[in-house]
Amino acid sequence: MRATGIVVEYNPFHNGHLYHLNEARKQTNADCIIAIMSGSFVQRGEPAILDKWMRTKMALLGGADLVFELPVRFVMQQADIFATEAVRMLADLKAETIFFGSEDGSKEAFIEAAKLANQDDFELLIKEKLENKTLSYGAALTEALHEKIGDRLDITLPNNILGFHYTLANEKMNAPLQIETLKRTTQYAETIPKKPAVTSATAIRKMLLQGHITQAKKYMPSFAYKEIINSSANLMTFAEIYPFLRYRLLTDSPGTISKINSVTEGIENRFVKAARHEEVEDFLNEIVTKRYSRARVQRTAMQILLHFEKQDAVSPYLRLLGMNQTGQAYLSKVKKDLELPLVTTISKAKEELIAYDVRATKLYSLMEGSRVQPDSDYLKRPLIYW
Amino acid sequence: MRATGIVVEYNPFHNGHLYHLNEARKQTNADCIIAIMSGSFVQRGEPAILDKWMRTKMALLGGADLVFELPVRFVMQQADIFATEAVRMLADLKAETIFFGSEDGSKEAFIEAAKLANQDDFELLIKEKLENKTLSYGAALTEALHEKIGDRLDITLPNNILGFHYTLANEKMNAPLQIETLKRTTQYAETIPKKPAVTSATAIRKMLLQGHITQAKKYMPSFAYKEIINSSANLMTFAEIYPFLRYRLLTDSPGTISKINSVTEGIENRFVKAARHEEVEDFLNEIVTKRYSRARVQRTAMQILLHFEKQDAVSPYLRLLGMNQTGQAYLSKVKKDLELPLVTTISKAKEELIAYDVRATKLYSLMEGSRVQPDSDYLKRPLIYW
Repeated sequence: MRATGIVVEYNPFHNGHLYHLNEARKQTNADCIIAIMSGSFVQRGEPAILDKWMRTKMALLGGADLVFELPVRFVMQQADIFATEAVRMLADLKAETIFFGSEDGSKEAFIEAAKLANQDDFELLIKEKLENKTLSYGAALTEALHEKIGDRLDITLPNNILGFHYTLANEKMNAPLQIETLKRTTQYAETIPKKPAVTSATAIRKMLLQGHITQAKKYMPSFAYKEIINSSANLMTFAEIYPFLRYRLLTDSPGTISKINSVTEGIENRFVKAARHEEVEDFLNEIVTKRYSRARVQRTAMQILLHFEKQDAVSPYLRLLGMNQTGQAYLSKVKKDLELPLVTTISKAKEELIAYDVRATKLYSLMEGSRVQPDSDYLKRPLIYW
Repeated sequence: MRATGIVVEYNPFHNGHLYHLNEARKQTNADCIIAIMSGSFVQRGEPAILDKWMRTKMALLGGADLVFELPVRFVMQQADIFATEAVRMLADLKAETIFFGSEDGSKEAFIEAAKLANQDDFELLIKEKLENKTLSYGAALTEALHEKIGDRLDITLPNNILGFHYTLANEKMNAPLQIETLKRTTQYAETIPKKPAVTSATAIRKMLLQGHITQAKKYMPSFAYKEIINSSANLMTFAEIYPFLRYRLLTDSPGTISKINSVTEGIENRFVKAARHEEVEDFLNEIVTKRYSRARVQRTAMQILLHFEKQDAVSPYLRLLGMNQTGQAYLSKVKKDLELPLVTTISKAKEELIAYDVRATKLYSLMEGSRVQPDSDYLKRPLIYW
């Protein structure tokens, strides 16, 4: 059986995701699609608008055969760590290919860029740039890459940067996966005769959050739309998590906050000061700068809320969220060769593996309007769709 | 100038409090009434329904001349610590008398009981009782006292127990204060010709919280009632604090929780387990037992929320919340002889003195519907009523 891996958030699942899933199967001739999905919280550093079980269901209905949870410790990190851990999981699961959407659409550009970036002199070039200017790491990386390969790959575009990091992570692991990429949107329009409407997940979240639910309908497969309607789920945002963040920032000592993983350069003082604002947007606006993006601020906030300390060791593991018959058959086949611990039942897993993801679910359950139970990770088994 | 001290919560201020204030002045022939008042949170371990500035205003309108805040570290403790620190503040402020309400009404009974309890053999008797039975400290104390003085003083009654602890604390400090006590309710009816209606603060809170505001009217002086109506303040309860408690209990490690001052005997595990309940009453019902009263559970919860750790040193200080002209004159007179630090402007105070009370205000501000600003301690000066 031939497996292809995808890395997803499905926040929420839309027509573009369905196309990506179908093309992954078709273009890579895959028997099994393995989705590595963020869980309760997404890489923008906010709660997924729908809980991880609803999104797992959508993934399976959309055609994924296996859905695993990317541990929240890796989701709440910058793109390189997020990508590295997703690639590690796919490689361990013996996927042959990783198939990602990109603005570029040329796998050669990604591979060339990644090979370059994996060389010592490239690291030196970045270091130089970081010394000479007041650049963020991402900006230094972009400049260095541009010097080396010019316009071949623009990694300032959001999907290109993730694709670049998947490819680089793969290079660093000696390329266990083949790289395939799907050019977003445009390619879509060319290949589908009666093309469904496509827009970004961000745009769809906006429609849903503003109550324009029927407006969002045409951008989503009917099963995903129905899931939202029928569950009458409340949609979660950073605003629902903000009261707890304020509690931490206003009552905890700056010393405790400074132990948190991404809290560096005295940023804890700016967080504490901004927490006087009752409105979440006022809080974010006060902290966000060019150098310190909204996503980064939110990820740091989530790390504070989830007590991700600098000293904590984190081990990857394979948490199964859902599967179908194909996925189950594939998993039985590769099970004995897995190096990472496979977790299907939380109560049987080692505490140190699952602690942060279990805590993330508890936090998700605390948000006003959340339908998740604090101990849902223990109550719910992996979803199985035949 | 002759000063008399009272220890109050005014949660909220009612006719019985007004009577107590007036009688304190009359019976002790006082020029100045000094009120030691709990601040953002009360000794039952819950937010005061109205913030400390509103309650200070009521105290001043009711006739108190000076209002000081009993530090929250002492309020969130059992009766003996609460009483000891209040007596310490009054003694330092050179009050001649402490005047408290009691179910008993005989100061001799309190003094006799306190002198007994201040002897070594009494401590031994309590120790014996604690060894032989599964009694709480309070129950052992009650039994020991009953053996010694019979029915002279029933310290199972709420005001008697506080009075006993004021008197005992005073004895232990070599009696800087004279003891005077006012028998509650009955005496009231005898001395006032056109008697205003009196009921407990608990009963009044219940009326207010159930929205029966006009029903509460007759039990309160009109200035206190008007203050509630005009401010259209939202009333705070333990329910408004519960989301933050759940956050702490569900996301923090039991190791961190076990560092909290009153967390002993593995009670943290019961707290964590009960925090799965979304409803605050379900949480409390699961933990409260005869041995572990609701007030004690709530105080422990507040200690968790305010990060009161076992290792923390706590220093008493005199935080002025409000005064009138008489109070100001009295304070100028005793100021130079104070041993405790006097704090009138928070920004000028030492961080280690004020940290917990400032934090308590921040926490108070976080509750849904609270009108308090996180940094109100810095923004508001002592109230002055001429």
